[in-house]
Amino acid sequence: MANYFSSKFTLGILGGGQLGKMMLYETRKFDITTHVLDPSNEAPCKISCDVFEQGDLMDYDTVVSFGKKVDVLTFEIEGVNIDALETLENEGIKVFPSSKTLRNIQNKGVQKQFYADHSIPTSPFTRFADKFELTEAIVRKDVSFPFVWKSCTGGYDGKGVAVIRTAEDVIPLPEVECIAEDLVPFKNELAVIVARNPSGEVKTYPVVEMEFHPEANQVEYVICPARITNEVATKARAVAAKVSEAFKHVGLLAVELFQTEDDDIIVNEVAPRPHNSGHYSIEASYTNQFEQHIRAILDLPLGKTDSKAAGIMVNLTGAEGHTGNVHYENIEKIMAMDGVTPHIYGKKQTRPFRKMGHVTIVNEDVAKAREIAEIVKESINVISG
Amino acid sequence: MANYFSSKFTLGILGGGQLGKMMLYETRKFDITTHVLDPSNEAPCKISCDVFEQGDLMDYDTVVSFGKKVDVLTFEIEGVNIDALETLENEGIKVFPSSKTLRNIQNKGVQKQFYADHSIPTSPFTRFADKFELTEAIVRKDVSFPFVWKSCTGGYDGKGVAVIRTAEDVIPLPEVECIAEDLVPFKNELAVIVARNPSGEVKTYPVVEMEFHPEANQVEYVICPARITNEVATKARAVAAKVSEAFKHVGLLAVELFQTEDDDIIVNEVAPRPHNSGHYSIEASYTNQFEQHIRAILDLPLGKTDSKAAGIMVNLTGAEGHTGNVHYENIEKIMAMDGVTPHIYGKKQTRPFRKMGHVTIVNEDVAKAREIAEIVKESINVISG
Repeated sequence: MANYFSSKFTLGILGGGQLGKMMLYETRKFDITTHVLDPSNEAPCKISCDVFEQGDLMDYDTVVSFGKKVDVLTFEIEGVNIDALETLENEGIKVFPSSKTLRNIQNKGVQKQFYADHSIPTSPFTRFADKFELTEAIVRKDVSFPFVWKSCTGGYDGKGVAVIRTAEDVIPLPEVECIAEDLVPFKNELAVIVARNPSGEVKTYPVVEMEFHPEANQVEYVICPARITNEVATKARAVAAKVSEAFKHVGLLAVELFQTEDDDIIVNEVAPRPHNSGHYSIEASYTNQFEQHIRAILDLPLGKTDSKAAGIMVNLTGAEGHTGNVHYENIEKIMAMDGVTPHIYGKKQTRPFRKMGHVTIVNEDVAKAREIAEIVKESINVISG
Repeated sequence: MANYFSSKFTLGILGGGQLGKMMLYETRKFDITTHVLDPSNEAPCKISCDVFEQGDLMDYDTVVSFGKKVDVLTFEIEGVNIDALETLENEGIKVFPSSKTLRNIQNKGVQKQFYADHSIPTSPFTRFADKFELTEAIVRKDVSFPFVWKSCTGGYDGKGVAVIRTAEDVIPLPEVECIAEDLVPFKNELAVIVARNPSGEVKTYPVVEMEFHPEANQVEYVICPARITNEVATKARAVAAKVSEAFKHVGLLAVELFQTEDDDIIVNEVAPRPHNSGHYSIEASYTNQFEQHIRAILDLPLGKTDSKAAGIMVNLTGAEGHTGNVHYENIEKIMAMDGVTPHIYGKKQTRPFRKMGHVTIVNEDVAKAREIAEIVKESINVISG
């Protein structure tokens, strides 16, 4: 185990968005020198890192050139050039999560196949190289309505996912590689964050429960602990740990799960990085997800994943009908409530459903936290004006 | 109350050290634009703020010129030019804490007189314009041994304070304005952090208990909650709130207190800013002291001051006999313990008793936290090599 606290070394982060920004709080706490690469010259990480470079994360040469200047390389977004990561690994740079792990995750078809190959429970699915193949399968009735369509690449925050109920729903789908998944009825959408370091130490966070906005398909509340039985929680954490082990994942892995009507746990998808479902941990956990990610990729001992109190996260998204300079209506009102902390991402312009920040509500009692969360959600409005 | 979240405004911070750095995490969280002034071009705040300026905090013109570019001005160190603050206030800049408050605190003789004038309990004292006056008073037996000598300006971390037991102890004292305080026997050294905003809202944090290193006169453990009776804790918080009200203080005020043998609470001294005795709050409190300071000076509602769990802070100071490039021996060992988080300040060189960082230990049970804290202290060594 390298002693990162006593030797001069540099951590590189691909992507300089909000997740990277929150990661940088932790690198500052541990006095780690950081380089950040992001396509935008106004990336949130531009201040707080030691060296900022503007460049395309999908460009092989850009990523290789950036990566050669650092000792350990990580990312806050999956959309990065994997061939570049592999080149860097071959040249001795420590890349975590590895190019191999990311190859198994970046493409959702490959990811689903990986679960099937490793006996990890997931909904039945079929892979299609393009929309034409999908249409043929529908005509031949190899795929039946309803099903869940997912683009194999580029999807996030509800984009690239659609529930297909009729032939008409197929028409607007883009001409991309995709999968069709069985629509499995579920009781709860859950998530478990797993941390794993190169030495193989694994820790899981408590199960969180996710509530989605019915229209925007974005997470609206993340509730920790999930209001489920201990038995289901234990099963969910075990499945998540199995996924992390199968990937030989290093760093943080957010495992999104469904609790079926029969209380089975099946894997929906994963994100190989700190995740929206773990933001609650900044205020509620003994070790927040960003510190944990840094501990994991530096092969430091993993921190305690228990919660100090119940935590609920509310995403701050732009209100419908509002586009323009952002105004956080009633933010003072919610800040006067016990245990309420807003995180403002600093985007100057709002538009409907745009993620503008999040609010964490912490309380000893999860039911009380949920009450306050609802008042927070009813009070604050992300509007223009 | 201005809506800082919706309008473009700039916060200025005088001093770019560790306290400023930890304050900047919170300004980033709230997306506040920051300017920082510090004499060192290698100040920890140089990255993380929007604009960094190098300059002398005691120079009138430098501070006025810096302050004119911001809307709200605060400081992380008391050693700043107060006349400049007053000029800025007269020109409409919001300066918190105010120049008036700082004038009553910066000079320890004035501070003690302020307590006497406002019926705030403090140890009996005499003020001296210089060392000659002090010596005369000793000769005339107006001051008797033992007493506590304090320099009126420039003291911190045990510097500028000495217990004087004999005439010989007087010889090495510097030729400065000073006070002589009665040496009051006490059971405990306590501290209470008070937050107050311009609207007059006041909140006190739980009482913390401080243990000092016997030689270096630096805080070794800060324990929250203090292991005292509820009655004494209530009294301590009331005295601290009274001090804040008397100063009409805006921002954070750390009030250092003695619990006497008779369970009286007397004020030792104050610091008008986030303080070492509040570092535990980053991990243990619902609202950490840095976020609270930002809330207070922006006249936002103050956050909940309760703790989510017991917190103990151990200062990481350079080991005796070690000067040179710093090495944090056994840091991985302490990071493997439950609820242990190191904060590394990033000073490249260690020397005996130099403050190099701190470690927070968080646990549901304060006695268990204290056990772990002792193991942490015995394990980690800040050495050279």
